[in-house]
Amino acid sequence: MSEKGICSVKGVKAYGFKDGKNGIAVISTPGRCVGTFTKNKVQAAPVVYSQNLLNEDPGIDNIIVNSGCANAFTGERGLKDARWMSKQMEGRNLVCSTGKIGSYLNRDWIQTAVEKAVRNIDTENGGIEAAKAIMTTDTEVKSIKIERDNYTVAGIAKGAGMIEPDMATMLAFIFTDIEIPQKEMENNFTKAVDNTFNMVVVDGDTSTNDTALLISTGKAEAEYTKNKKQVWKDIENVCKELAKKIAEDGEGSTKLIELSITNAKTEQEARKAAKTVLNSPLVKTAIYGEDPNFGRIVAALGRSKTNFHPEQIEIKINGKTVVKQGTINIDKEITEELKEKTIKIQINLNNGNAEIKGWGCDLTPEYIKINAEY
Amino acid sequence: MSEKGICSVKGVKAYGFKDGKNGIAVISTPGRCVGTFTKNKVQAAPVVYSQNLLNEDPGIDNIIVNSGCANAFTGERGLKDARWMSKQMEGRNLVCSTGKIGSYLNRDWIQTAVEKAVRNIDTENGGIEAAKAIMTTDTEVKSIKIERDNYTVAGIAKGAGMIEPDMATMLAFIFTDIEIPQKEMENNFTKAVDNTFNMVVVDGDTSTNDTALLISTGKAEAEYTKNKKQVWKDIENVCKELAKKIAEDGEGSTKLIELSITNAKTEQEARKAAKTVLNSPLVKTAIYGEDPNFGRIVAALGRSKTNFHPEQIEIKINGKTVVKQGTINIDKEITEELKEKTIKIQINLNNGNAEIKGWGCDLTPEYIKINAEY
Repeated sequence: MSEKGICSVKGVKAYGFKDGKNGIAVISTPGRCVGTFTKNKVQAAPVVYSQNLLNEDPGIDNIIVNSGCANAFTGERGLKDARWMSKQMEGRNLVCSTGKIGSYLNRDWIQTAVEKAVRNIDTENGGIEAAKAIMTTDTEVKSIKIERDNYTVAGIAKGAGMIEPDMATMLAFIFTDIEIPQKEMENNFTKAVDNTFNMVVVDGDTSTNDTALLISTGKAEAEYTKNKKQVWKDIENVCKELAKKIAEDGEGSTKLIELSITNAKTEQEARKAAKTVLNSPLVKTAIYGEDPNFGRIVAALGRSKTNFHPEQIEIKINGKTVVKQGTINIDKEITEELKEKTIKIQINLNNGNAEIKGWGCDLTPEYIKINAEY
Repeated sequence: MSEKGICSVKGVKAYGFKDGKNGIAVISTPGRCVGTFTKNKVQAAPVVYSQNLLNEDPGIDNIIVNSGCANAFTGERGLKDARWMSKQMEGRNLVCSTGKIGSYLNRDWIQTAVEKAVRNIDTENGGIEAAKAIMTTDTEVKSIKIERDNYTVAGIAKGAGMIEPDMATMLAFIFTDIEIPQKEMENNFTKAVDNTFNMVVVDGDTSTNDTALLISTGKAEAEYTKNKKQVWKDIENVCKELAKKIAEDGEGSTKLIELSITNAKTEQEARKAAKTVLNSPLVKTAIYGEDPNFGRIVAALGRSKTNFHPEQIEIKINGKTVVKQGTINIDKEITEELKEKTIKIQINLNNGNAEIKGWGCDLTPEYIKINAEY
């Protein structure tokens, strides 16, 4: 991980710190922004506020993020608090919160914290400090950077480990200094998020606060039209690497599951199949237990309402065939594979041309401990 | 629990026993039958066989059930085995299997076991022995009986604790001696199952083998038309009590969750809301930890795609209001309630007239232990 993190992107400065259970991060990033926000019916106040701000105009100056209090299910007062928080720095500022639902922002603490963070915003490793400040039950800092000759794409995220431990909030902030036309950002970012962050399953609970933002500062010299294809590949890769880190760092997890569905009838069906398998407690506990119960994968596929013929599907675990022609194969070699830290499940539905990748983790006693006690 | 169990129903005899991980139950019940079967795309061979048999003609003689091997994902050979198993007693016989997916029936064992069970079918407590024989990770025998002056309704079930521990198979067999017209059985049993067994959530995994059967032997003197309303109330109550027992005995569970959704826009939405809350790992771990994180219930409702206004919902825990007018109330009295063995969650969506009840359990480290190690 680069020491400069997102601050490698020209025009981006950041700093953050934690103070017990609370954290603050400020990211100065004058530029244009697109965002994708939680589809949960209960949207947290900062989500409502930030979405409205971007609907008015994509130009922004700063992102202010607090951890420890989600400012969700807080009604009118919550909306006022979100607006107030956005005014703690000059300019048009997005706000994000993550933490406990149903309690109000502590304005005093946030005011002092933002001031302190702003004073330190020229710190060299400020990007990494910001990434640390938004961590909650995350055990690893999530920061990814791709530097090209003439532009940079970098991002930070906090994981779907529940916050506080109230919520599985995912926050992701992606920055690039290449100038991308707004229309292109709107058209392509949702797709990148759909193929990456939206294919991460930790526990199937989605948050009131989930937010992914892409900001283009336009400070790089590179010309967009010449680099277009590479730029979006880089953006999707930054999202994908952050998504994998989120899955790998799922609460209490000991293993990363990399799932691919191939030859599905439609992409929608491929997604449904992938999410059902990644979400199955039986599959997740089997992976945790290094237990070759591949029937559980078949049963999860069966209830996913995906079209396939049971006799025609093929399943491989870490490259080794375990299901083919309607029979399940378990040998010693495969049992050994289950001891690996990363488990690759490849499911070939042999029923079309659509495909998708997804990421998840095992379900462990530690997950329950984290979420039952606090 | 009555010692005679389902054998209190006139015309029903039963016996069963376990032999290590394998079990057999035979139920002699000449009568007419309707069934509801798993909607999993991968249907086990006995499900395919029994469904076909009932499609031809509802008249049956016996039900033969084995535990230990699900005879699922076993292709042509599995279908042959199911047909063969149904021939181990004379007459038109249904077969049910529960256990590990992807392995074949042990014909030798089953043949000998059925013979032994048939020899003992006049044993007085044979109904209870049959209920015991189909248990797997179940910790309690599930047998319910309602005796009226002139007819009886009784049922046994095995739970959604995964089998072997491969599957969350639920089997339920309901018997009555009152003669119910076939059309009435077809019209009403699905509804009873939808309101009871289909509202139980243990871990959201549905099985290749799930089966619920209702058999009318017609041996009671009571006349159907005069008792119609009471009979269906009794049948639904037997189903409901068995469903509750299944939820209460979910693998590794320490608490029963009784959930009611009221004033939803549509029944379908009420169902969706109930299932999403009962299925939420965050809600389930909070209940296990006796942790008043009621924001988790709100967040689960929010992602259930149910229509409601966050400010208008009311949530009660064991009769005490915890969410009202957009705020969350946590006091000491409520924290005390969470120590109860049964947690009643009442959610009033204030958005219509539809309602539904559902049952679930907490998520505990023991669940993971059961499912990761075997």
